[in-house]
Amino acid sequence: MSEQAANGGIWYNIRMIAKLILDKKREGHALGSAEIREFVEGFTRGEIPDYQMAALAMAVCCRGMNERETADLTDAMMRSGRCLEWDVTTADKHSTGGVGDKLSLVVQPLAAACGVCVPSLTGRGLGITGGTADKLETIPGYNASLSLDDFQKVVKEVGVSMTVQTDEITPADKKLYALRDVTGTVASIPLITGSILSKKLAEGAGTLVFDVKCGAGAFMKTREEAVALAHSLVDGAKAAGRKAAALVTDMSAPLGRAVGNANEVAEALEWLGSNRVGVGSDRVGVGSSRVGEGSDRVGVGSDSVDSNQTLSDSNSTLNDPVSLCVELAALMVSLAKEISLDDARQMCRAKLADGSALAKFKAMCAAQGGDLDAFGRLLKKPTFKFKIQAMKSGFVTAIDAERVGRVALALGAGRLEKTDKIDPLAGITLAVKRGDRVAVGAPLATLESSREPDGLERAAADLLKAFTIGPAAPEDAGLVFERID
Amino acid sequence: MSEQAANGGIWYNIRMIAKLILDKKREGHALGSAEIREFVEGFTRGEIPDYQMAALAMAVCCRGMNERETADLTDAMMRSGRCLEWDVTTADKHSTGGVGDKLSLVVQPLAAACGVCVPSLTGRGLGITGGTADKLETIPGYNASLSLDDFQKVVKEVGVSMTVQTDEITPADKKLYALRDVTGTVASIPLITGSILSKKLAEGAGTLVFDVKCGAGAFMKTREEAVALAHSLVDGAKAAGRKAAALVTDMSAPLGRAVGNANEVAEALEWLGSNRVGVGSDRVGVGSSRVGEGSDRVGVGSDSVDSNQTLSDSNSTLNDPVSLCVELAALMVSLAKEISLDDARQMCRAKLADGSALAKFKAMCAAQGGDLDAFGRLLKKPTFKFKIQAMKSGFVTAIDAERVGRVALALGAGRLEKTDKIDPLAGITLAVKRGDRVAVGAPLATLESSREPDGLERAAADLLKAFTIGPAAPEDAGLVFERID
Repeated sequence: MSEQAANGGIWYNIRMIAKLILDKKREGHALGSAEIREFVEGFTRGEIPDYQMAALAMAVCCRGMNERETADLTDAMMRSGRCLEWDVTTADKHSTGGVGDKLSLVVQPLAAACGVCVPSLTGRGLGITGGTADKLETIPGYNASLSLDDFQKVVKEVGVSMTVQTDEITPADKKLYALRDVTGTVASIPLITGSILSKKLAEGAGTLVFDVKCGAGAFMKTREEAVALAHSLVDGAKAAGRKAAALVTDMSAPLGRAVGNANEVAEALEWLGSNRVGVGSDRVGVGSSRVGEGSDRVGVGSDSVDSNQTLSDSNSTLNDPVSLCVELAALMVSLAKEISLDDARQMCRAKLADGSALAKFKAMCAAQGGDLDAFGRLLKKPTFKFKIQAMKSGFVTAIDAERVGRVALALGAGRLEKTDKIDPLAGITLAVKRGDRVAVGAPLATLESSREPDGLERAAADLLKAFTIGPAAPEDAGLVFERID
Repeated sequence: MSEQAANGGIWYNIRMIAKLILDKKREGHALGSAEIREFVEGFTRGEIPDYQMAALAMAVCCRGMNERETADLTDAMMRSGRCLEWDVTTADKHSTGGVGDKLSLVVQPLAAACGVCVPSLTGRGLGITGGTADKLETIPGYNASLSLDDFQKVVKEVGVSMTVQTDEITPADKKLYALRDVTGTVASIPLITGSILSKKLAEGAGTLVFDVKCGAGAFMKTREEAVALAHSLVDGAKAAGRKAAALVTDMSAPLGRAVGNANEVAEALEWLGSNRVGVGSDRVGVGSSRVGEGSDRVGVGSDSVDSNQTLSDSNSTLNDPVSLCVELAALMVSLAKEISLDDARQMCRAKLADGSALAKFKAMCAAQGGDLDAFGRLLKKPTFKFKIQAMKSGFVTAIDAERVGRVALALGAGRLEKTDKIDPLAGITLAVKRGDRVAVGAPLATLESSREPDGLERAAADLLKAFTIGPAAPEDAGLVFERID
């Protein structure tokens, strides 16, 4: 045990060593590899108390960490728990989280449909950004808390599994993240990198693709910060011997129409092509038409994106979420299978169009106990709905993702505290997207929840403020700002 | 109760507010008065946990606080407990702490002898800098844990009292200091100012004089830092309506010959003139000659400063500790009584020479239960001693106060942890001072403790390294670097 070390003739215990390390970082010096390892290990074992780790986190926020320190932090956190290994070609995609970000539900099965195994350990939502696990768990029976052994089995049998990381994976990150969340020390690129990357490295995927969200509805508010994080993640993953790339993507407006949980799953199923008759239904026995019926209920009415049309448009730019799904999956496939990005794109488009991606999603659901028939019935349950309308005519020039996320949270779609319960049917369905032309009185969005929420009036008024309506159509900059290889 | 506040339509509890405040300080913004008050109050009540306060302390270390924020912090900490008021003229001196710093034992009684009441709440030692209370408690029977009521009584009856601050005074500081000590967040001028000043303001003295130590054996290692802290303390005290001044003084070498506890009291008694026959002995009945005998034992041999000679030398510069005592007491008296500094110096020299200061010290001891006869007997107890000698001839050009302090700590004269017991007889007695000429084999210092210490060899070797012996006498820069009014 290295709990004690000699210094100047006096014997110090681990808390004193921690204090010396804190002094060093406070003064802005780089920490040594052994110092970082000892701090992380001591904290994980409970020998370094929360208050010392909180002080270190704040010192790192203020003084930063260089690339080597960040790699050491990531490595120490990764080694705090179990690290998986795979004997098949694996890739995973990680999003830094956004409002309405249901992309994983499409990207992961799509990459799997292209023959890459996708071991995807995912998280629960906190604050305005929802968690993929919470969304999947709205499918009755879906087990998002698999053991790591079962997780490995599903990945090998189906080609994709999405489940919450167990306590065996990076316990140091779990402890540290909970602390950072309450000490104002979330906003630090080295700490964010350590948190994201340690989990993804422990998961064992050979290729990692990062979707770094940027804008009002994301962690990273500015493009500069997002690009810096993307570089840090890609560099860190490469330093750890993985193939890696990142896209910096727009999160100023919600992704797609649905913000919530069950409604986001319904939208993802739609993007996967479940409203195209017969696709995949013979393979896993889940009637896609029922889900299709369900999706009518979540407010995707006459304005809805026709995903078939989007997919058939070979000139489609990256201004719609489905194309972004294809781009992310293509990056995974291209790196993992070492084929050109263009070939990978082509393959992804084909696998989405022919229903293979949907089939993978359904197979994963079946393997993890999810009942898509029951999900279709859930979507038909009567819920409380409240529609807000445009107060003037013009073009929707902006939809403030942060505000939409906050209202969805208030409706019960998310958690303020880790122990909060989520209402699976709560959320918002947008009736318009950026660039749409609206007349006075046209529906903008619907607030939904299982029962009439407290403070509905305030929530509705708040949501209305999320929409900016102007005289001219906005420029379409596309969803992808930058790619980092 | 202000535990909840509305923000963006969502209700936050105090920990969420704390998090928002942490975000603000992390980003380098100034905090509002109400925010600082709420944080300190929440922390004192235990509603804001240690880890949030640790993060704030680190953020303040890294981002700083402006003068207004520092004043707000000080005020909030002061108000966390009881605040004393006096209907007599009061002054106190506070030292930021040094090695061998027994000045309070002389300065406080000296000011009292000049007719200024001195309510002096003092502390215990931690690390290399000893605490005045620990030193006084080596006098058998001395009660350094008076209730505030008894403290007020002794101040009014005797004119001076020195006791440890009770839990009623600035509980916020007590909690915060313990946390800063283990989180590497001690080194921050706003936090140090808040800690020192909140206690001194609560103590109620109308005049505050600060002795800001500077050098290897002090908190503030550089003159720049020390001057900044001195300004912060003086400005803060004035902002709170007190008269204030500060001296920035040298702490590169130990103050005086004795470093420890009982030996420092003996040296202070010597400086107060207890070896001048008959002084004061008729007034409180403590035989000063016995203490004088005791002081022989603590190694003040042929090289010892003759305090009578020092005092009679009207041209003495500020290069000896007794003159520094006079200067500090004179500043207190001058500000409190609104007389010129020269008049105050004259008065102090007279009150030291005529035994009035010693009499005040003895009266305080008697009032607080201290038995100076028994103290004399304590000094005669057989102890373990080990002498180190010069390895070459030359001039003592430097005595590293930090190293001397660290060895004294290792011998048992101080505490590494708050719960450590102090050995009252442990310490170091220097046989030389800076500038002395030594021959090979000449004694440099004696290590002492109640019993043979563990690791004596290492301690002795370490102490030897504290002495730099060179071919030429060092320049004498004096003890006082700067005065800040």
